[in-house]
Parts: sequence; structure tokens; C-alpha cells
Amino acid sequence: MAVYTDVSDEDLEAFVAEYDIGAVESCKGIAEGVENSNYLLQTDTGPYILTLYEKRVNPDDLPFFLNLLDHLAARGVKCPTPIHGRDGRALRELCGRPAAITSFLRGMWPKRILPHHTAELGKAMAELHAAGADFPMSRRNDLSVDGWRPLFDRCADAADSVRPGLRETVARELDVLEARWPRDLPTGVIHADLFPDNVFFLGEKCSGLIDFYFACTDAFAYDIAICLNAWCFEPDGQFNITKARNLLLAYSRLKPVSKAELEALPILCRGAAMRFLLTRLYDWVNTPEGAMVKRKDPGEYLHKLVFHQQVDSAAAYGLDPADVA
Amino acid sequence: MAVYTDVSDEDLEAFVAEYDIGAVESCKGIAEGVENSNYLLQTDTGPYILTLYEKRVNPDDLPFFLNLLDHLAARGVKCPTPIHGRDGRALRELCGRPAAITSFLRGMWPKRILPHHTAELGKAMAELHAAGADFPMSRRNDLSVDGWRPLFDRCADAADSVRPGLRETVARELDVLEARWPRDLPTGVIHADLFPDNVFFLGEKCSGLIDFYFACTDAFAYDIAICLNAWCFEPDGQFNITKARNLLLAYSRLKPVSKAELEALPILCRGAAMRFLLTRLYDWVNTPEGAMVKRKDPGEYLHKLVFHQQVDSAAAYGLDPADVA
Repeated sequence: MAVYTDVSDEDLEAFVAEYDIGAVESCKGIAEGVENSNYLLQTDTGPYILTLYEKRVNPDDLPFFLNLLDHLAARGVKCPTPIHGRDGRALRELCGRPAAITSFLRGMWPKRILPHHTAELGKAMAELHAAGADFPMSRRNDLSVDGWRPLFDRCADAADSVRPGLRETVARELDVLEARWPRDLPTGVIHADLFPDNVFFLGEKCSGLIDFYFACTDAFAYDIAICLNAWCFEPDGQFNITKARNLLLAYSRLKPVSKAELEALPILCRGAAMRFLLTRLYDWVNTPEGAMVKRKDPGEYLHKLVFHQQVDSAAAYGLDPADVA
Repeated sequence: MAVYTDVSDEDLEAFVAEYDIGAVESCKGIAEGVENSNYLLQTDTGPYILTLYEKRVNPDDLPFFLNLLDHLAARGVKCPTPIHGRDGRALRELCGRPAAITSFLRGMWPKRILPHHTAELGKAMAELHAAGADFPMSRRNDLSVDGWRPLFDRCADAADSVRPGLRETVARELDVLEARWPRDLPTGVIHADLFPDNVFFLGEKCSGLIDFYFACTDAFAYDIAICLNAWCFEPDGQFNITKARNLLLAYSRLKPVSKAELEALPILCRGAAMRFLLTRLYDWVNTPEGAMVKRKDPGEYLHKLVFHQQVDSAAAYGLDPADVA
């Protein structure tokens, strides 16, 4: 659930006057994006998205995010495109917060995932990875293996109150991940948060990707691992190998997956499960009772972690490393 | 803060297919309307509002609300107009809830109230009252004087924990209101919840009224009293007589205010303050700590009640009963 900053009409009108997008007709807070305040802004030239960056986003990262969107859009990736003001700037300030206007992306995120969705996702992710190849900026992934233990240290004391034995399970798994984390896979720009609510569809086709505020420079295959976690488990916890296979096949058709990447998938999937287990655990422990934020169950990702711990080859995800040898 | 029901794409597409409004391109939950789930629905013919009626609205009242909007729109009142499906129906079901699509009303609600806003409000309210005069349906106001004591009985035990002495203050005031409540003022359709977030502006002009889900048949002057409470106190608690006078003058220019109505204003204002004090107190006491609803401070309306208790003539609101004698 997003935060909503009340933007006064005067401030909004002055802000929009910096752009060549016409006069404001409407501006409504929307339930989109967890980290920022998003508004659907209508002017007499059409709909736009206005984003106010709230405290969880580091302002120093904003040029990376906005330049990345410009870069991707110029290469035909369907994503929100920053609107530049008359002074050329895409990033300015509104209500004391960094703020930007982007194009409006048509489409809706799928509430019920069907196998064709993951094929479209694989295709869109491969296009994203390919288009980002010559993006000149880089951004470290703070939520990768080196960041997990410090994060866990800040919520470990409460882990067992969420699930008995969780503290020990996470500590042991971190030992394994730190020892076995692959460091030499092909890297580039990844989205790092391609959950269903960040992938829009019009009919059966993907119409674009949104919410690039975790994007960073990391292993491409780690982005795949995040998606296997986020898209390929059924609501009852069962892993759906058809959805996983669709994702991997569609991706590899556009961007070949190396043998090393495929072999690393099980450990990358364990890492991706750990990443969301830890951030959810941290939020669970640190979200005040009365906060207007829906806390997400860390247990969902413990379940996924345990599944991946039992996987010994990418064949379990529907694509055998032997296939790409 | 609104509730959001996750509407699946399949359900939404089937729902929209009942109308002649084109194909769905986007549907986003918006932070508008406290009682219902509202979505900004975009189709290839433009923007619409999709409303899912949640549990706080009695389904039996929906024909009153939707017919009223049809009636008002036909008389030129700027308000959301129900879109009728090919079968003629404006009310159907989506995700197990009553649901309707209305036209999209341009404009934004004023975050900072200036004196010209209340003049526009007075004009729009007078037009609403006049246009509703020949509306054939009626709906009792459950949140008027007869409803207050039963509501208070359900939260009185906790009143003093919100503010010491509040229980006694409310009980005494209810005695006064029940004894002195005017029963013979001119009645008709009133909005009954014309807070700033339900009144849209484009530039300096009112562009329309929304959220008619408290509309009912009651004294016109009670609607004025609600607005005096909701629009004419400054954030620091001071009553702004200029805003009140602008409201009353603009209203009375289009729809004359009788001497009886003006004389009743102080007690009606006390009643309106009591109504919002009680519903806020009830919500305060009955909203679970972790609920995703921002509780509103009942104390704000205690302060307003105390102000009106010291008023002995509508002259305190900027319009002297002698002026209309």
C-alpha cells in the first residue's frame, strides 16, 4: 500500500507548468508501487503518472532509475518513460520530495497467473536484459548476498516469534549462500522486483514493465530466479513447472542462457527466496501495529526456500542444463 | 482510505463487456471514497469510475443513490453519471459485490480551503437542492437526531478514554439536541457529506460533486450546517466567518434561505458537529489497531460543537436572520 502525500492544487499546478503536457484536469492517488506515492495525473493532453519518492528510496539513486527508463524506452522496451520539463530535467521537487512525471502505461497486472503470462514475462525480461546491455551507469544490488546477513542481524531476535526455528534455518542457509554464491555469471541491468504487480498485460500480451526502483547491476540469472519465485508457485504453495518452463524457454529464445547460468539457478532461487524472506521478516518485525501497510507473510518465502533447497538441477524448473550444453 | 477488492482481469472484462464503453485498457484502485472501493477505469473511449460497494453501504439503498445521480445529471448538476449497460441496468455485480460504472468527473478537491471555494460550494449546494426537488424517491437520514443516541450507546463506555469528560458532554448535548431539534424546516434531497474531498474544482470553479452515498431526505439547512462545520474552521480551530458568509450568500442567492432556516442554523450546526463527533468516536473505538484505515480525530468535532454551543444567532455565521426577514 502506497503512502499518499497531499499535494496542494497550487503546488501541483506550478509543478506541471514546468512541462509541456497541458493543464491539470485531475490527480488521484493510486494503489500502485509500494515504496512511493503514485498519482494518476490527467491533463488535457492525456494521462500521466506522477511519482513522489518517499523515504525508502535513496535520492542519490534517482538519476540511475530515470536515466535507465530513458535508455530502455529509447530501445523499445515498454516501460514508463520520464517526461522531461522545458528545462530538460526529468527530476524535480514537489512538496519537499523528489518527484517525476512519466508516461502512462496501458495494461493491468494479472491477478491470477496463467502459463501464458510467464512466457510473456520471460520474453519481456530477456528484452529488458538485452536493452540494458549498453546502459552506462551501474548500481550495486544492496539486497544481494552481501546485504542479507546485516539485514538478518537487525531482525534475528524476533525471527522465532514469527516461526519457531526460523532463526536457525536462516542462519544455516546464509552460511550456504555465502559459501556457494556464484560470482562470475554474466551481469547487467536487472529489474530485481518483477513481481506480477509490476508486469502489465493487455489481453494475453505483456504491455510493459513498471516500478524499476530496485533495478541494479547484477547477474541476469538472478532476475530469472526472482521471477521463478514470484510467478511459479501456486496459491497453495505447489511449484508449477509448466509456468517455469514457459518462462525459461521464452527467455532463452531471445537471450541464450549459458550452462553456468542454468546450473546456478537452484542456488540463485534459494538466494532470491532468502532476499524476500528477509525483507518481509524485517518489515514484519519493524512495522508498527497501527501502520497503514499490509505486512506480507515471511512464511511464504520460507516455504519457497525449502522447495529450492531440495532442487539439485535446473531440470526441476523445466529446463535441463543438458539441453543448452 | 478505501478498501481494495482485487478484481481479476477475466471478471473485469466480462463486466465491462455489458456496457457500450469500449475495451478495458487500465484499471487502478484510487484513494477516493471512504466507504467503497473505487477504481479509475480507462477504456479506449476514455476514463470512467468503477465502484464496488463494500459492506458499509446497504445494497437496498443503491437504487436511491444511482437514480438520484441520473436525476441530478439530467438537470445539469455536475456529478458522476451512472453508465447504463446494454440491458439498461446501471447496477450489477462484480466479485460478489454490487458494482456500477459512472462517468469520470474532472477536477480536484481543494487541499487548502480559500474563501472563493466556499462561495462555489454554496452555489453548487443550492443547485443540488433545487434540482433534487422533484426527485420522487426518498431515503431516511439514519445519522440524524434519532440515530445519535443509539450510536452513542454503542461507544459511550470508551468516550472518556478518548477525552476525559466526553461521555458527560455528549450525553448532555444529546438531551439539548433531542429537545430543540427543528422538525418543520423545508426538506428535500441533501448530500449530507459535502466535505472538501467530495467537491471538485477546476481552477477557481467548482467542477462537480461526488460521493453521494450518504444522500438522504432531510432539511436543506442541515446540509448547510454540515458544510459550515466541514469548510469554515481553519486548521488551527478558528472559525472563519468570511468563508461562512461566502457560503451562505452564494447559496441564498440561488435558493432563498427562510428566516426559520437561518434561526435554526446554530442548533443544526451543533447537530452536524455531533453527527461527525459520534461517527468518528464510534470508528475510533471500533477500528482495530492494525486496520488499514486512518482514524479521524473525534476531538476536532468536539471543538466545533463547543464553538456552536456559544453561538446564539446565525449572525455568527456571517448572515443575520434580520437580513432575510
